[in-house]
Amino acid sequence: MRPIRRCAVIGAGVIGGGWAARFALNGLDVAVYDPHPEAQRRARATLANASRALSRLTLAPLPQPGELLFAATLAEAVRDAEFVQENAPEREELKRELLREIDAAAPASALIASSTSGLLPSRLQSSMRHPGRFLVGHPFNPVYLLPLVELSGGDATDSASIDAARDFYASLGMRPLQIRKEIDGFVADRLLEALWREALWLVHDDVASVEEIDDAIRYGAGLRWAFMGTFLTYRLAGGEEGMRHFMAQFGPTLKLPWTKLTDVPELSEAFIDKIAAQSDRQAAGRSLGELERKRDDCLVAIMQALRTHEFASGATLAGYEERLHARAMHDAAATPRPDIRLPLELHRGSVLPDWIDYNGHMTESRYLQVFGDASDALFRFLGIDSSYRAESGSYYTVETHISHLREIASLEAFYVTTQILDTDQKRIHLFHRLHHGRERTLLATAEQMLVHVDAGNGRAVPARADLLARLLELREAQAGLPKPEQAGRSIGEKPKRG
Amino acid sequence: MRPIRRCAVIGAGVIGGGWAARFALNGLDVAVYDPHPEAQRRARATLANASRALSRLTLAPLPQPGELLFAATLAEAVRDAEFVQENAPEREELKRELLREIDAAAPASALIASSTSGLLPSRLQSSMRHPGRFLVGHPFNPVYLLPLVELSGGDATDSASIDAARDFYASLGMRPLQIRKEIDGFVADRLLEALWREALWLVHDDVASVEEIDDAIRYGAGLRWAFMGTFLTYRLAGGEEGMRHFMAQFGPTLKLPWTKLTDVPELSEAFIDKIAAQSDRQAAGRSLGELERKRDDCLVAIMQALRTHEFASGATLAGYEERLHARAMHDAAATPRPDIRLPLELHRGSVLPDWIDYNGHMTESRYLQVFGDASDALFRFLGIDSSYRAESGSYYTVETHISHLREIASLEAFYVTTQILDTDQKRIHLFHRLHHGRERTLLATAEQMLVHVDAGNGRAVPARADLLARLLELREAQAGLPKPEQAGRSIGEKPKRG
Repeated sequence: MRPIRRCAVIGAGVIGGGWAARFALNGLDVAVYDPHPEAQRRARATLANASRALSRLTLAPLPQPGELLFAATLAEAVRDAEFVQENAPEREELKRELLREIDAAAPASALIASSTSGLLPSRLQSSMRHPGRFLVGHPFNPVYLLPLVELSGGDATDSASIDAARDFYASLGMRPLQIRKEIDGFVADRLLEALWREALWLVHDDVASVEEIDDAIRYGAGLRWAFMGTFLTYRLAGGEEGMRHFMAQFGPTLKLPWTKLTDVPELSEAFIDKIAAQSDRQAAGRSLGELERKRDDCLVAIMQALRTHEFASGATLAGYEERLHARAMHDAAATPRPDIRLPLELHRGSVLPDWIDYNGHMTESRYLQVFGDASDALFRFLGIDSSYRAESGSYYTVETHISHLREIASLEAFYVTTQILDTDQKRIHLFHRLHHGRERTLLATAEQMLVHVDAGNGRAVPARADLLARLLELREAQAGLPKPEQAGRSIGEKPKRG
Repeated sequence: MRPIRRCAVIGAGVIGGGWAARFALNGLDVAVYDPHPEAQRRARATLANASRALSRLTLAPLPQPGELLFAATLAEAVRDAEFVQENAPEREELKRELLREIDAAAPASALIASSTSGLLPSRLQSSMRHPGRFLVGHPFNPVYLLPLVELSGGDATDSASIDAARDFYASLGMRPLQIRKEIDGFVADRLLEALWREALWLVHDDVASVEEIDDAIRYGAGLRWAFMGTFLTYRLAGGEEGMRHFMAQFGPTLKLPWTKLTDVPELSEAFIDKIAAQSDRQAAGRSLGELERKRDDCLVAIMQALRTHEFASGATLAGYEERLHARAMHDAAATPRPDIRLPLELHRGSVLPDWIDYNGHMTESRYLQVFGDASDALFRFLGIDSSYRAESGSYYTVETHISHLREIASLEAFYVTTQILDTDQKRIHLFHRLHHGRERTLLATAEQMLVHVDAGNGRAVPARADLLARLLELREAQAGLPKPEQAGRSIGEKPKRG
């Protein structure tokens, strides 16, 4: 299948807006249809949140965002779509009718997915003329950050549709999970509902408040659920005897009267009032926007933390970044090379909020991190990849001289230019300049000496001939550039101006 | 109440061993009683895991670890204890009898807590002569990392005992949560059980495997549960209309047949075999030890990530570190000042695994982070605190020259010494040396120029008179030290030896 370029999103509430943002930020054009008068404003607000979150989640090269278009009718929205995602309220009749309309108006080759959190695909597809291309693709809020999407086909769904949807969602950085049997609530929501029902009872019976219940989760099991789920956790709880021991030890408590197995609390007005009031107290005046940003910041931080360990959602993120780098390399191969007679502009990014120290400024070590990322970008530009490193060695920094000139604030964009001062068989002497993205002012500089080292024995060795040739070409091209005023100085020495 | 110094741990399996480790690593002596022949080996292995995890969780000054002693009898273990934590298997009769024995043998002033995950405290304390000092303190695995501990008193429990236990657990970096009503399973385990029961049904009915269920959690809701719990999450799912909208929209699905409300699956041999076999496949040959380390690494990374945002368990960690720093300051005030005629040794730590780059070495920006931490330690030594910063300003780095001499591997210890090269009213010119902790070899150096800045207007201003006096005293004392060979050089310049 060719890569999908044009999507349609039908219904743009919390879930549909999240899909539109994920699609657009992955370079796809998105046509949105939602009759709600506020739909357009909300979808744009969600896109802004998502853009902020994604730029913090990864430094990998995201594609140019696609366009977000608002269609006047459902038929107009799906007319050119290669992929349609339906996100109407959870009413089977309504969804069935919308899916019939989508099916009638969309191109014959388009895939059609529903975000339903629990309705059966066989029933949803029953009014479609081409039900083979329909499946459930059930995401989780915020759709632009959480990787999980549950896939479930109905009786009439073609297995090729499931395969195509799996590839498509994975290309957006998601983790598709195919459900083996068609079942109400699929898998994740059955688990969430079971927990939530019990939580409602605990509030109902005044055993705990909504805030206390959230604390009972987020300071304990919730931390483990973020990367291990429930079975792997319990395997470890069994100690050296493992899962069998755990089942033997804790199995019987399953039958103790710990949960209100048989009942569902009556959602009376009084009970809903109680929950809403406790929820307001918990929010303590923080607006929806504030809470959403806090949630997104924490999700980004957790997924980045897990990426370091290449585990769970961190492994998904690492795979997504690999794909983004590969695509950027592929695109770069098709574009003209930069003018190598000028300092190379190979690295750009934004100051992340966790880079800020107690003085409200970017922590000094983050400057060196940015310069290190710029050196990595130079290495990629020169053709050093993991196979070069494995066979021939890599460059290690032996000396760095950083000069700080101006501050940069949180979330501001920046870019780095890199000038080759000198090079020989074993060394690169280079000069990075960190600039403010918008104002283009110089923020800091780093003069560095790098040495080419054989990773096996840790000794300095000459670079491979082809790499050396590229480096010498670069040095030659930049030989005419003026020497930076901060270079060649010792600490405290005045710049050699003029 | 005076701070607790001596604890007893009765039963040292997964939970008891975790308690022993948390107690010992917080500087408490721990007497352990467990008749299991392997208990001592296992408890020491858990302590090693915990020590590794805690040294990575925080750079704050942990106290000297307490001793782990193994007692031959229960009475011997609790004889001198100020706090006793009971962790026997979940059988009410057994626990009641053990608590009666603990009560009879422990000092009258000792607090006694049970780790039971669901038995009622009123029943557990019923055979004790001094039941007022008994409560449930229910932790979560791994006890040395997860902050949550549920507190529940029985009918005979004194409220002062609950208060004392809350303070004690909080001093260990935990998040005590008092349960309002005595109830089987307390709060957290009721939620866990509800989810797990549903998970067992899904495996039983072949809707999903244990690995798929774990994936359905850890790529989706589990990421949110790590810091928001369930109610705050749903508040956000309601969008701008909030909790009431969410309840109205999703409330009805509570009554849909999404879960096997009324039943508990029969834990037949065949069903347990199925779960154990799927769990083995999921573990894919990784040993318990490997999985435990992966779990601990991920937990550490998540809590550190959340600390950046001062949210959920990250806020607990920040509070714990503040306490550790305060205690270290307090202890330091009682010890003689270091010899200020020598370079000051004010910062030490270990190389964390996430500091390692694709070459298997400590990433260059982490060197500057360590040097920045050493500068912060110097500021604390000089008496710069948040009130000084608010009133008088703080030092900003304007230039840094780093020289790399040797590599250091993951988890190796290091320390930094700091020499004052020069200072005047507005500037400090200093020199850090990073040393290998064990081998004492020099790994890297950083020459830095810092300027005292008024945070309000960003201008260089003189330091406050009392700070300046301390700085000049330090410069005077170190005036006789030889100038470091790496100082005063430009990049690539040869060291001035001899």
